[in-house]
Amino acid sequence: MGGMKSAAVVIGLAYGVSFSLGVRAQQAPGDGPRYVNATNLVRPADYREWIFLGAGLDMAYNAPPSSDPSSSPQPERHTFTNVFVNPSSYRSFMQTGKWPDRTIFVLEARDSGSEASINKSGRFQAGFTGLEGEVKDSRFPDGWAFFAFNGTAESVEPLSGEPLARGQCVECHTKNTAVERTFVQFYPTLLEVARQKGTLKPGF
Amino acid sequence: MGGMKSAAVVIGLAYGVSFSLGVRAQQAPGDGPRYVNATNLVRPADYREWIFLGAGLDMAYNAPPSSDPSSSPQPERHTFTNVFVNPSSYRSFMQTGKWPDRTIFVLEARDSGSEASINKSGRFQAGFTGLEGEVKDSRFPDGWAFFAFNGTAESVEPLSGEPLARGQCVECHTKNTAVERTFVQFYPTLLEVARQKGTLKPGF
Repeated sequence: MGGMKSAAVVIGLAYGVSFSLGVRAQQAPGDGPRYVNATNLVRPADYREWIFLGAGLDMAYNAPPSSDPSSSPQPERHTFTNVFVNPSSYRSFMQTGKWPDRTIFVLEARDSGSEASINKSGRFQAGFTGLEGEVKDSRFPDGWAFFAFNGTAESVEPLSGEPLARGQCVECHTKNTAVERTFVQFYPTLLEVARQKGTLKPGF
Repeated sequence: MGGMKSAAVVIGLAYGVSFSLGVRAQQAPGDGPRYVNATNLVRPADYREWIFLGAGLDMAYNAPPSSDPSSSPQPERHTFTNVFVNPSSYRSFMQTGKWPDRTIFVLEARDSGSEASINKSGRFQAGFTGLEGEVKDSRFPDGWAFFAFNGTAESVEPLSGEPLARGQCVECHTKNTAVERTFVQFYPTLLEVARQKGTLKPGF
């Protein structure tokens, strides 16, 4: 597991990620994204009741720093990420292998714990550390947008500037994704459906 | 991360685990456990649409084997576990911090992958490897039962004999659990609720 040693904890914004809202009661038809000021995504209040797609530990874009024996040891901190999607879009995907308009993905980041209670090895999920979103919505120029909720912000505008430019999200979510702009290759139950429906991009 | 090296991959039956069914359309009122022959739990068809409580990686009861430099290297295999609960019981817990009768938990085990696609470090979830269940149901002598689905079995009887005796499940799920017989200490969103509702056992 050399790859996990002091792995840079990078929860990719452009990752398997997607964030969005889902206050079912407050939104127009269905459980899709809700906005203020036309394109600012409202923080989803109930995403923990959406459909869970998959989890990762210490997922990162870049190779971990090589182990240099002369360097001082890094503190051990490991991050879990959980991806959720709004239920109606999930049901649509299970039928078609594609995402309908007004789909929202949320990436939740959490610290991990170990050696607590009866757990003697391995890691479990702990405190909340961050939330990101991705939507497929025709209100955006090319149909997709990416969001990063800072702190407890109630709503957030789409990513568009530096340092993490929208273009980087789009590029990675276009070049490296298995289905449309989503990392279905990391969501095992969806991967199987996409394979059956023939919606995987070439190479997957 | 020494603790993760060649960690024995033990997905604890008595773990944070719980399995059960939840074929909503087929069961009597609600989304609770469904049985054949009175106490054989029917394999849940739709647990991936239940409420996700938390994930773990390489969670084990026992300390990992110590690294013996003279021993041959172990193949690297790491297992994720995902825990789900039926939605109506989740909603009840969020209100009360307790589990209602006819609650079902499912523990799903999955292989993990790494260094695939854009993932350069860390781990993501892959193929299904196992399913276990726990129910809180007054039809059982002391109100709880544990199940392990072998292969693709459509239903399974409660654990009662060796090698993994029901007694072991009960003992661990009684002594080491934060709320009733459930490992709420590993489900961060529930832990917070139980703390607010005052339903945590002493020591948590």
